Amino acid sequence: MVVRKTAIFYLIFGAAALQAQSLKSPDGKFEMNFQLKNGVPFYNLNYQGRPVVEDSKLGIRIFRDGELQFGSEIENKDNKATNLDGNFVKTDEKRDTRNETWNPVLGEKKSYVNHYNELAVTLNQASTDRHIVLKFRLFNDGLGFRYEFPEQENLNYFIIREEDSEIDLPWDAKTWWITGDYDSQEYQPQTTMLSEIPAKWATSFDGNASQTPVKNAVQTPLMLKKEGREPLYINIAEAAVINYPVSNLEVDAANFKFKTHLTPDAQGAKGYIQTPAVSPWRTIIVSPKAEEVLASKMIFNLNEPTHYADTSWIKPVKYMGVWWEMIIGKSQWAYSTAKNVHIGKTDFTKLTPNGNHAANNEKVKSYIDFAAKHGFDALLVEGWNIGWEDWFGHSKEFVFDFITPYPDFNLKMLNDYAHSKGIRLMMHHETSGSATNYERWLKPAFELMNRYGYNSLKTGYVGHIIPRGEHHYSQWTVNHYYRVAEEAAKHKIMVNSHESMRPSGQSRTYPNWIAAEAARGTEFEAFGGNNPEHQTILPFTRWMGGPMDYTPGIFQTKLDYYFPGDKRFVKTTLAKQLALYVVMYSPLQMAADLPENYARHLDAFQFIKDVALDWDDTKILAAEPGDFIHTARKTKGKDEWFVGGITDENARNFTVDFSFLPKGKTYEATVYADGDDADYISNPQSYKIYKKTVTSRSQLPMKLARSGGYAISLKPLKK
Amino acid sequence: MVVRKTAIFYLIFGAAALQAQSLKSPDGKFEMNFQLKNGVPFYNLNYQGRPVVEDSKLGIRIFRDGELQFGSEIENKDNKATNLDGNFVKTDEKRDTRNETWNPVLGEKKSYVNHYNELAVTLNQASTDRHIVLKFRLFNDGLGFRYEFPEQENLNYFIIREEDSEIDLPWDAKTWWITGDYDSQEYQPQTTMLSEIPAKWATSFDGNASQTPVKNAVQTPLMLKKEGREPLYINIAEAAVINYPVSNLEVDAANFKFKTHLTPDAQGAKGYIQTPAVSPWRTIIVSPKAEEVLASKMIFNLNEPTHYADTSWIKPVKYMGVWWEMIIGKSQWAYSTAKNVHIGKTDFTKLTPNGNHAANNEKVKSYIDFAAKHGFDALLVEGWNIGWEDWFGHSKEFVFDFITPYPDFNLKMLNDYAHSKGIRLMMHHETSGSATNYERWLKPAFELMNRYGYNSLKTGYVGHIIPRGEHHYSQWTVNHYYRVAEEAAKHKIMVNSHESMRPSGQSRTYPNWIAAEAARGTEFEAFGGNNPEHQTILPFTRWMGGPMDYTPGIFQTKLDYYFPGDKRFVKTTLAKQLALYVVMYSPLQMAADLPENYARHLDAFQFIKDVALDWDDTKILAAEPGDFIHTARKTKGKDEWFVGGITDENARNFTVDFSFLPKGKTYEATVYADGDDADYISNPQSYKIYKKTVTSRSQLPMKLARSGGYAISLKPLKK
Repeated sequence: MVVRKTAIFYLIFGAAALQAQSLKSPDGKFEMNFQLKNGVPFYNLNYQGRPVVEDSKLGIRIFRDGELQFGSEIENKDNKATNLDGNFVKTDEKRDTRNETWNPVLGEKKSYVNHYNELAVTLNQASTDRHIVLKFRLFNDGLGFRYEFPEQENLNYFIIREEDSEIDLPWDAKTWWITGDYDSQEYQPQTTMLSEIPAKWATSFDGNASQTPVKNAVQTPLMLKKEGREPLYINIAEAAVINYPVSNLEVDAANFKFKTHLTPDAQGAKGYIQTPAVSPWRTIIVSPKAEEVLASKMIFNLNEPTHYADTSWIKPVKYMGVWWEMIIGKSQWAYSTAKNVHIGKTDFTKLTPNGNHAANNEKVKSYIDFAAKHGFDALLVEGWNIGWEDWFGHSKEFVFDFITPYPDFNLKMLNDYAHSKGIRLMMHHETSGSATNYERWLKPAFELMNRYGYNSLKTGYVGHIIPRGEHHYSQWTVNHYYRVAEEAAKHKIMVNSHESMRPSGQSRTYPNWIAAEAARGTEFEAFGGNNPEHQTILPFTRWMGGPMDYTPGIFQTKLDYYFPGDKRFVKTTLAKQLALYVVMYSPLQMAADLPENYARHLDAFQFIKDVALDWDDTKILAAEPGDFIHTARKTKGKDEWFVGGITDENARNFTVDFSFLPKGKTYEATVYADGDDADYISNPQSYKIYKKTVTSRSQLPMKLARSGGYAISLKPLKK
Repeated sequence: MVVRKTAIFYLIFGAAALQAQSLKSPDGKFEMNFQLKNGVPFYNLNYQGRPVVEDSKLGIRIFRDGELQFGSEIENKDNKATNLDGNFVKTDEKRDTRNETWNPVLGEKKSYVNHYNELAVTLNQASTDRHIVLKFRLFNDGLGFRYEFPEQENLNYFIIREEDSEIDLPWDAKTWWITGDYDSQEYQPQTTMLSEIPAKWATSFDGNASQTPVKNAVQTPLMLKKEGREPLYINIAEAAVINYPVSNLEVDAANFKFKTHLTPDAQGAKGYIQTPAVSPWRTIIVSPKAEEVLASKMIFNLNEPTHYADTSWIKPVKYMGVWWEMIIGKSQWAYSTAKNVHIGKTDFTKLTPNGNHAANNEKVKSYIDFAAKHGFDALLVEGWNIGWEDWFGHSKEFVFDFITPYPDFNLKMLNDYAHSKGIRLMMHHETSGSATNYERWLKPAFELMNRYGYNSLKTGYVGHIIPRGEHHYSQWTVNHYYRVAEEAAKHKIMVNSHESMRPSGQSRTYPNWIAAEAARGTEFEAFGGNNPEHQTILPFTRWMGGPMDYTPGIFQTKLDYYFPGDKRFVKTTLAKQLALYVVMYSPLQMAADLPENYARHLDAFQFIKDVALDWDDTKILAAEPGDFIHTARKTKGKDEWFVGGITDENARNFTVDFSFLPKGKTYEATVYADGDDADYISNPQSYKIYKKTVTSRSQLPMKLARSGGYAISLKPLKK
């Protein structure tokens, strides 16, 4: 004991207290410096010798005894200052380094490199006799840091008032952002200078089913660009958000500074912590090249390896769905004309059918026929279960039971029929935000899925969360999403969560949580529209933490095709829709349009049928957020490549350089391009398809229409 | 349609709008008058021609569109005045009468009489095109009324802001009350004039594990007495609180008036209603005799008959428990010395035992031996399951799993051992208020109970409720208690809920919810004490809605017996403890003291062994709230009676008149009385036991010591 105390004494009053700790990235390009200033922790980050993050404060404020109605969680009986944001002395420092590769179950590459240098600083707060650890990991693509709360005599339980992790940029920057919110990310991205965010904030968002915008705050992953002669791209996000609320970033426009702002619960509490515990990682990816930001797997590296013993049942899912026709208003989720139903009491066979229920036996069979014929893995059917008559907007807790089909949906027959044709139905669990109710039905619902042979699940959380007062991104609800993923894994079910928290790389640990919506998807084209640039931004923001179920593939973009005079249209060319399957990585991809529309364009549909969902390799050929993305990927386990390119509202030219192909081999390229007269407004369905022979030395000039794109499949030519 | 409108027109502008509706009780003693004054509903109540309740307003205020973050629950798109408390016209009135008897599964009498006249008034609110129904039932013992919300075009979903049901008394009255609270009823009753309540409110309560006192409000059942030459006893309560928050009563001291104050949720909402729906009944029992208030079964009559097909498995439970020794601090619930454990992660076999864990195999076996030897039905064992090390005060959601025993508790062996001796173990599920967690484990926990042969369950809700921000008495949590009772019924399990909502007669409908604590029980004798009058008040208040698990039977009242110098003592004589088994009706009764203390008083213990728990008949011989209660009961299905009498802090004499016995029969009375020198402070264990032969013409003078009592068992003498 005496010896140890002496050692600590030396560390404090000898070297440690007087100088900063420095950490370099493996390639030496990044340098992170940590120091205590008057007991308050600060860090900064330099890239190539220049500051990217200036001295930025770290700390956690916590509730004092008795301040919240849940009372005395804090062990310190003297009720002294309890915050973990100052009065620290450094008592230990540990360094580590790791260079490893790991293979994602499903991914953009066969293996990801996890290479970092680590600094862990133990900070002691003498006034409370507590210590925490600040852990920094510096990769060749950026910095991750987190708080660690070891179990100790005086730190067992506490409630977070706020995490005050700052990121102080040295300069103003172009920023692609959406409003901070506790309940929704389904917003159009805004592009302004960081300094302009507060002025633009109030008009930055439109209405949503459940939203709680946070003033002058933005969500992550946040994309920034220092413009000028030596541009720098910066991505700020979080990794491994587990048992902790999702964070927003408060904007200090005058100082180009961000600060975490956690999602509160009904009582304003921002995290109930029992030690040992860790915060999510705060991540800062930096590169002079936008392409390298897209290629970064740092967020996944900061998640833990999976603990699942068997992952062989986790497979890519290409699916169609009884869905888009309801989204556009052609048919309905609900079965009857009733306005008010009671699950467990209402006899649905006695209700008057509305005559427009999509999920009926006949229609579902026809979808199965089409999807099976074209080689899909699965068919999503929404509106199969009772309760849709009054599912939304009533804060109705017992809104669905997840096991009882509507009278016109024969669960056994339709699953048998699908299986006989070689495909599976995809289950749909819309919760209406009533998470407490969903948890009650989770086990019987999953047992039903197992009984009928479902292996994938789309969940939905449209509307306000129950427990009432909780938010989509508060700690309780975060834990709920993981609970669902883990329970699903027990039943060998893959989860595709909609209106959930955004992914933070957790698919490394929970690989059956294969995709999420958690952003503004294709459905909004029918609800108010997505800007043409939308898809060129999402991969830099929402996508950084994991795949999105964006539901591309809309061929019939103009809705007046169904409803004469309807002005709604999907702001894309048909060819761009094909390109999205390559540009927007997801192991779960929908062909979202109606079978009849694909039947009219079977030649173009061929690309959707061919495109892979899981990859050995990925090359970002060129990218600029808000402008364009061009991506090439190699199919997992096959000598086969796909290329996709998209543009924003501007027509662009791009020359595909096939140097990513192995040298000396010849491929047949099938090119799906915008027609010469294509235009997302005036002529979206103009496309051309042609074949070319290419090698690694080939170059192919492409013309992209306004909000256009192209897709290329490459198969080796037999010699 | 036209005809109907004309009929309505006549009702409005003809007779109905101009005069009050009057309703009389079957015996004619009560008269209730209803009228609209400027569109606002009022009622009053007369007893024997004199006002008991003066004109009192009724109404419900509801949230308007968008006022709460859960948004647009209210159907009226014009967002007009939405409250249901005015602008009414009466459009219909229906009358009904019923006179029936029904047999409670377990009860104080073999059958209860349900005899009432009913008035149902339909009120239309033209401005919103909505109608509600006010339903009044007038019994010979008092009035019940409720709101009914029929399903209709413009009233499908709404959120209650407040129910404003007033009860305006004509005079000041002596009142036995506890503070209004959203989370606890574990308070000492206060006895003041109604007009004094606000002045006394702030000092009326002590601390509790989870409490949210409501200023100048009181809880129900509330007991009042108009003093004077013609005294009148009034009991104000509620019946059938289902899918609705528990109410408090706000006190208007100047006007001797009460108004409902519902328990809010985390958002301040007081009930999410989907039509068709009904409110709980507001009940007012009135009698010139205190005894008749105790005898009233009006609250049970206002509950629905049970829907359980089979109730044969619901039986009285006389039990002992591994419990009191932890309550007084002699042993512990927790197994180890750890301060911080994680269910599902911590290996409890690796922890250091604290050496004082009560629920260990050896001790439980010795309790089983004793309880079985003396003919008990069950043995409660608390602290059997992992998690007690840090179960309280940390807002810890995953606090217990309800299925994993501590390493020193052999679930199978102990149940087998108990069964081999003819008794059952009683399960204990302490939730620590974490209701969401409990719901997740409900099914496996009940399956475990079935597997090992448990048929009764004590639940506990110590601490703040999770979902955080909900209260013990808010609508969500109310629904939780019923969910537990219903799920238990599916597993043929009887529930005894502690720290739950108070019963409101729901045992008629849910007969397996056989008892609840929901008041200040014997345990508080170890936590700060119950006043000697406490047990003379509870039957008039808490008990009106259903049985309480008061856990009487403490023979070793002074705790310095265990801990020299300890000043705590149970404020009772030993004989009074015996009397409680008769005075305080419950089909579930504990003998709460330690076996060793009963072993020292086996003669007195004999009464606890003999006393019945289910009755053919009950006679309240004499009663005055706060002073004394004397009760006689006939065992169900047996020619056998028990009498019990208790007093407050004053010694009293009482002559038991055996005229309740059938004429012409002779009984042997075994009398358990306070010793001549008995006194709850100086000599609590002084008692005497003697036998007498009695008939219906006998009278037996009893001397009750300060906080004393007596118990008598009567068995027929064979001729």
